[in-house]
Amino acid sequence: MSQTSSELVHRLNEELLRLPPASRLVSVTGSRPDIRVPMREIRQQDTPATFGVQPNPPIYVYETAAAFMNPEQPPDPALGLPPVRQDWINERQDTEQLDGLSSEFARNRALRDDGERFMVPRAPSRALKGRNVTQMHYARQGIVTPEMEYVAIRENARLDEMKSTYEEAGLLRRHAGQPMGARLPEQVTPEFVRDEIAAGRAILPANINHPEVEPMIIGRNFRVKVNANIGNSAVKSSITDEVEKLVWSLRFGADTVMDLSTGQNIHETREWIVRNSPVPIGTVPIYQALEKVGGVPEALTWELFRDTLIEQAEQGVDYFTIHAGVRLAHVPLTANRVTGIVSRGGSIMAKWCLAHHKESFLYEHFEDICEIMQAYDVSFSLGDGLRPGAVADANDAAQFAELETLGELTEIAWKHDCQVMIEGPGHVPMQLIKENMEKELADCHEAPFYTLGPLVTDIAPGYDHITSGIGAAQIGWYGTAMLCYVTPKEHLGLPDKHDVREGLVTYKIASHAADLAKGHPAAQVRDNALSKARFEFRWEDQFNLGLDPARAREYHDQTLPKDAHKTAHFCSMCGPKFCSMKITQDVRDYAAANNLSEQDALNVGMNEKADAFKRSGSAIYQPD
Amino acid sequence: MSQTSSELVHRLNEELLRLPPASRLVSVTGSRPDIRVPMREIRQQDTPATFGVQPNPPIYVYETAAAFMNPEQPPDPALGLPPVRQDWINERQDTEQLDGLSSEFARNRALRDDGERFMVPRAPSRALKGRNVTQMHYARQGIVTPEMEYVAIRENARLDEMKSTYEEAGLLRRHAGQPMGARLPEQVTPEFVRDEIAAGRAILPANINHPEVEPMIIGRNFRVKVNANIGNSAVKSSITDEVEKLVWSLRFGADTVMDLSTGQNIHETREWIVRNSPVPIGTVPIYQALEKVGGVPEALTWELFRDTLIEQAEQGVDYFTIHAGVRLAHVPLTANRVTGIVSRGGSIMAKWCLAHHKESFLYEHFEDICEIMQAYDVSFSLGDGLRPGAVADANDAAQFAELETLGELTEIAWKHDCQVMIEGPGHVPMQLIKENMEKELADCHEAPFYTLGPLVTDIAPGYDHITSGIGAAQIGWYGTAMLCYVTPKEHLGLPDKHDVREGLVTYKIASHAADLAKGHPAAQVRDNALSKARFEFRWEDQFNLGLDPARAREYHDQTLPKDAHKTAHFCSMCGPKFCSMKITQDVRDYAAANNLSEQDALNVGMNEKADAFKRSGSAIYQPD
Repeated sequence: MSQTSSELVHRLNEELLRLPPASRLVSVTGSRPDIRVPMREIRQQDTPATFGVQPNPPIYVYETAAAFMNPEQPPDPALGLPPVRQDWINERQDTEQLDGLSSEFARNRALRDDGERFMVPRAPSRALKGRNVTQMHYARQGIVTPEMEYVAIRENARLDEMKSTYEEAGLLRRHAGQPMGARLPEQVTPEFVRDEIAAGRAILPANINHPEVEPMIIGRNFRVKVNANIGNSAVKSSITDEVEKLVWSLRFGADTVMDLSTGQNIHETREWIVRNSPVPIGTVPIYQALEKVGGVPEALTWELFRDTLIEQAEQGVDYFTIHAGVRLAHVPLTANRVTGIVSRGGSIMAKWCLAHHKESFLYEHFEDICEIMQAYDVSFSLGDGLRPGAVADANDAAQFAELETLGELTEIAWKHDCQVMIEGPGHVPMQLIKENMEKELADCHEAPFYTLGPLVTDIAPGYDHITSGIGAAQIGWYGTAMLCYVTPKEHLGLPDKHDVREGLVTYKIASHAADLAKGHPAAQVRDNALSKARFEFRWEDQFNLGLDPARAREYHDQTLPKDAHKTAHFCSMCGPKFCSMKITQDVRDYAAANNLSEQDALNVGMNEKADAFKRSGSAIYQPD
Repeated sequence: MSQTSSELVHRLNEELLRLPPASRLVSVTGSRPDIRVPMREIRQQDTPATFGVQPNPPIYVYETAAAFMNPEQPPDPALGLPPVRQDWINERQDTEQLDGLSSEFARNRALRDDGERFMVPRAPSRALKGRNVTQMHYARQGIVTPEMEYVAIRENARLDEMKSTYEEAGLLRRHAGQPMGARLPEQVTPEFVRDEIAAGRAILPANINHPEVEPMIIGRNFRVKVNANIGNSAVKSSITDEVEKLVWSLRFGADTVMDLSTGQNIHETREWIVRNSPVPIGTVPIYQALEKVGGVPEALTWELFRDTLIEQAEQGVDYFTIHAGVRLAHVPLTANRVTGIVSRGGSIMAKWCLAHHKESFLYEHFEDICEIMQAYDVSFSLGDGLRPGAVADANDAAQFAELETLGELTEIAWKHDCQVMIEGPGHVPMQLIKENMEKELADCHEAPFYTLGPLVTDIAPGYDHITSGIGAAQIGWYGTAMLCYVTPKEHLGLPDKHDVREGLVTYKIASHAADLAKGHPAAQVRDNALSKARFEFRWEDQFNLGLDPARAREYHDQTLPKDAHKTAHFCSMCGPKFCSMKITQDVRDYAAANNLSEQDALNVGMNEKADAFKRSGSAIYQPD
């Protein structure tokens, strides 16, 4: 076992990464036995006697960390995950396994010895000549792939089977949503998934060289997703740290992970990450390309960039951020900004364009890039290289000129049946957020929007997970399909695993709040279950149903550490006398003791005016 | 020195409570020498040579912790703060100093010996018979009080004097706001303040028995304010802890503080807090009333409650939460809820109404309460006792029935020239937030709205500062005048001083984001200054201009601890090669070297299409 591997096995054994209390792993099987969608079942206690005994059904959540939580089988990152999609890919008979690596850089790299290398060899695959292996291509042929069926099961999270149980338990009540133009089906079918992908309104990022990926979907007619950025930098760098951050990302609910490494061992770090990731991995290939030319943007060439795309595609990266919208003509538009160009990729391309006084090679070679993407099914994440880096720069000419270019490029990519999402800002005050969403849908033909934040103010370094979580919840509601998290370290330093946790929980809040506001059929069940547990003083259920049970338990125990208090019918905020929950239950009991159903009580309250109520009231509530 | 006092002097000497680096305390004097408004001046460094040397002007923020930050004079909480308003109150000649306490409870209490007692004696005052001493009363008489002038200076935060300096430094650029019906003047005048108070659209909470208060205003045509809740409970209780939390609240920007104590020594705790508070103090008198009757809601009487109001009014409480909207007829409307009644005050009154089968004594005696309020100038905070405690219960019949009652009560209070704000929810999913604001303005005749959160989802115990900060930013934008903070401990335990910090910074973010979105004239200067500092790698300025300099510095140092790195022109996220800020500056330098002004570059970019730009481009950007 390598040093990286043994260190990782040790770190991944941490208490916080294990299966939370009252949870167990289950899987839902699809139309074929090898479609098995992992979920976490959160069991609840019965309603206690004081609130009227009642069983409370389990809640199901999709669990991307399942592979790292199995109590019987601790994970070994040196082996990687099982290739759950391999048979589906092979059965399509449109790919070939290659004898060697197609990338020159990767081949040369392979000759060197390196202790950090991921040691299980894997031969890359590529589309057969003339074939297109994207999920969009299949969708447009009318083919429902196993990946699409998997996604449908995942999105439903057993709500279809559990519906009547939840109804009986009173957990299905929900408010009318305000979907802002989204079309949310009561139940997601494989055919609906196919149709959304075919139309370009959603993407299913799944490289044929990442058979370990558990398929997921990004589109505004599905649940809002969250991406976590990890990756080293020249200043701080370790493969062990990055794989650990990957697993923390999974544990706290990342739907995709971007490896933004710019430091040492970019290739090897990525190999470890991809082989251990059940979620799609995104990268920004220009970072590695720049590293290859010693950090001098002017030295970049199309040939070197192309080789980098192929290198990463054959490793299994599922989506690439490509800053092809940063055109020569756009650069002067940024001159007057408070913070200029803040996207790393954007600034690299801007410098290249200026130095050569040439149009961007990414823009000029966009169709060549499409050919690579369709040969491996790598999805485009069209980068917003000119996004604002300060609220003062939001929604300006540079940003919107680039967005229009991204719309043009989307149409070109779709001509090749390549999957596309569009990256968005950044830093935007609240009143300008909606315009971003509306313009993206219009200019980019409803391709899914993938936004960073946006941060709604710049005055809180150290708290930018919050400044951006506010904006993220809003733009998610308006129609953004995936939110890129921001951690408390944003603008200050490289996030560690604790920052990953803070950032992800914040963004799971934002995405879930967006689902609720849109009226997503499944979104409110968990809120209702937790609220009911809270009302009934089922403390353990309240912790376990939350996004971060360990944190909730820890905070509770700071004031009331004794175990007995977890069954107490009061809490430290009010103490036993002031407990409103308890008093409310007294009110309910009173109604019950007087043979008055809750519904009767409600109807009386609704229909009678105060005076009339007073007259008839004594028949309803007898004084003690 | 008492034990409480010496322990407090020790605790308030904490590094984090001291004046932050590069700050100094200044004051702005009004039309008379005793109107001195404390502000904190944040000095900035000059723009470094690589970005073109330029002086950067100081930024001014209102500083409520000034009294506790004076490096020459460490505070002694045993003495309390100086009575800055005493002369203004006396000059009006409409109050009398009383020989003793009017409250029976307080008189009996005074006979007992108690080591925790605040030892500096203070004789209470009351309005002369037949006089009304509320700021609303003066405003309606056309009188501009010193308090109103103070507020105008405070709201402007020197922007009037600094305008041209900020313009020259490029810090005044701002986007058009979307004020959602608010009317924000470019400069706040004392007359504008008077007019808003007279109309009931704003309140200036300032009890004549709280001469230590630094006047502030709550209304949607002013900056959005933030309240911090502190207070002990039966489970956890200490005067020292609560006074310490008060000072932490001030330090992190609380505009008002509510003492929600329900445990031991409620009276004494409040005395310490009021005497040391430069911000208005709010309470929920029913909590103490309930404590006096041994925690049995049915045992409450109007006489006991009345005595409690007078007791607290003579201590100097500036606003009272009164749950007079919880009427007998409303209670059955809550029977069907997921979480029933979650407001402590609301549940106490509901139980009282049911037990006696009588209309609420608060509702029935509302005019009697008004008479007390006008004799001391205590403002009403009309409590939302039936606010939803779960997103499932948002905007329901119970909540809105109470809101309509609060509208009726507002008109009654205004008849007595009593100042009124309206409390609001609670737990509300995003799509239902706006309805709350619109209904409040309509039903309550534009009285200021004061909301708790709202939390936009219930699934994140341990992170409810964030679930609610999202809702708070939105409702603040829509028109809420003051946001009541929520800490990470919400639903789990009693907040400690660290939770106070987290909650307040989150809510300062929300309120500031709301000001920005509304287009408040002064709001964007600080964002722009911080963004410019960030772009120019003025790390210290970036920390110091933020809401929590210590946190920002701490996070930065975790990755790059060396002092040299605070002047480095790169950061740990990207390292020196990948720095987009640096590359952008190269782009700007390039334009400069080619005799091209930033504005020229901008115009070219705006006017020319890509092809035309290519043709003319070589004249602008020469290749290296």
